[in-house]
Amino acid sequence: MTKDISNKAIVLVSGGLDSATCLALAIAQGYEVYAISFDYGQRSSSELDAAKRVVSQLGAKEHRVIDLNIGQLGGSALTDSAMHIPEAESDGIPATYVPARNTVFLSFALAWAEVLDAEAIYIGVNALDYSGYPDCRPEYIAAFQNLVKLATKAGVEGKVIRVETPLIDLSKGEIIKTGMRLGVDYSITVSCYQADDRGKACGHCDSCRLRKQGFVDAGELDPGCYQ
Amino acid sequence: MTKDISNKAIVLVSGGLDSATCLALAIAQGYEVYAISFDYGQRSSSELDAAKRVVSQLGAKEHRVIDLNIGQLGGSALTDSAMHIPEAESDGIPATYVPARNTVFLSFALAWAEVLDAEAIYIGVNALDYSGYPDCRPEYIAAFQNLVKLATKAGVEGKVIRVETPLIDLSKGEIIKTGMRLGVDYSITVSCYQADDRGKACGHCDSCRLRKQGFVDAGELDPGCYQ
Repeated sequence: MTKDISNKAIVLVSGGLDSATCLALAIAQGYEVYAISFDYGQRSSSELDAAKRVVSQLGAKEHRVIDLNIGQLGGSALTDSAMHIPEAESDGIPATYVPARNTVFLSFALAWAEVLDAEAIYIGVNALDYSGYPDCRPEYIAAFQNLVKLATKAGVEGKVIRVETPLIDLSKGEIIKTGMRLGVDYSITVSCYQADDRGKACGHCDSCRLRKQGFVDAGELDPGCYQ
Repeated sequence: MTKDISNKAIVLVSGGLDSATCLALAIAQGYEVYAISFDYGQRSSSELDAAKRVVSQLGAKEHRVIDLNIGQLGGSALTDSAMHIPEAESDGIPATYVPARNTVFLSFALAWAEVLDAEAIYIGVNALDYSGYPDCRPEYIAAFQNLVKLATKAGVEGKVIRVETPLIDLSKGEIIKTGMRLGVDYSITVSCYQADDRGKACGHCDSCRLRKQGFVDAGELDPGCYQ
């Protein structure tokens, strides 16, 4: 590796199983990893506790938890306790969609990547077993990658900060198998949209259903805690 | 105007003369205006005081000031008091560049636009008399507009949130003339990168120099206060 190539990567870590797997993959690629999480007024604060556990167990050079006020802008069942979290699968984009969430998250990751001279940003989006969010699709990621080239000092100087989405084409079952191979301990992750303060999952929301089916498909036992 | 077309617009307001003019233009277009400003750890807190004065004088349905922690990520003379603010014009991108700033700002504006069902986001970027920031260029704005279509629930449903940059091709002198026509009071704006607590400008930084030359070109007196 030549001197002018950084081997740092930013990894977005939510505390769920996808981002834990993504972190393990970035580490396995040999990156010096900088983890970033967001306190955006999500209902479930146990998600952030899980993010801290995951980063601490898998290891990272640094972990920043950024306080955001995106929740105060409203518009999502994930941040607004007056809105109902749907349990049945919905047509179209569900009430748990947080407006422009990944764009806000990736923007912060991009800012930090520029400051650190990192060469990649890892985000655990997944286009198969997801909740129908527009900002998890490959075409969205491609548009953000295009923006990165034009938005940054690094881009103007010809350096590319790559947006890496290693889970994008995997099923939940494949993600779980990958993580198990890399030694991810899924018992410390929290996937639920409305986990209680101790991190116990509801077992019924869209995210819980996708997780449970994933473990079934992977032929593994789900070590998560349910209420 | 049909019922399903919203006539709300988000306007990014920094407290400088460009964004004040941009706000006046959005109001002149008949929009119900929602102003958004960011406390991102900028050295000069008088910038935010100016933003509040500008919004209060020109009028907006609502004004949100979002606390961001982008400054804590470092990397810019505008947020890091250990870095020197350059006074001479520099080649390339200057030290006052804040990594990914406009991307972070526009992401928040986009989130609020989705929540409010707004049809436009106004940002006062300018490609002529600017400081060489990559995220002020037309190609950057085009890339963000493309992202908007893919990032949002609105976009998936076929609604376009337009990113409006009415100042992009204007010189600083033309911006000032436009604002004067619309009754903008430039005495309450602060353009300086290092204004003091009372909003008095240094008169020497890149931003002050562009402002002073703009008033000369417009044939108007600069009503700003200098130290």
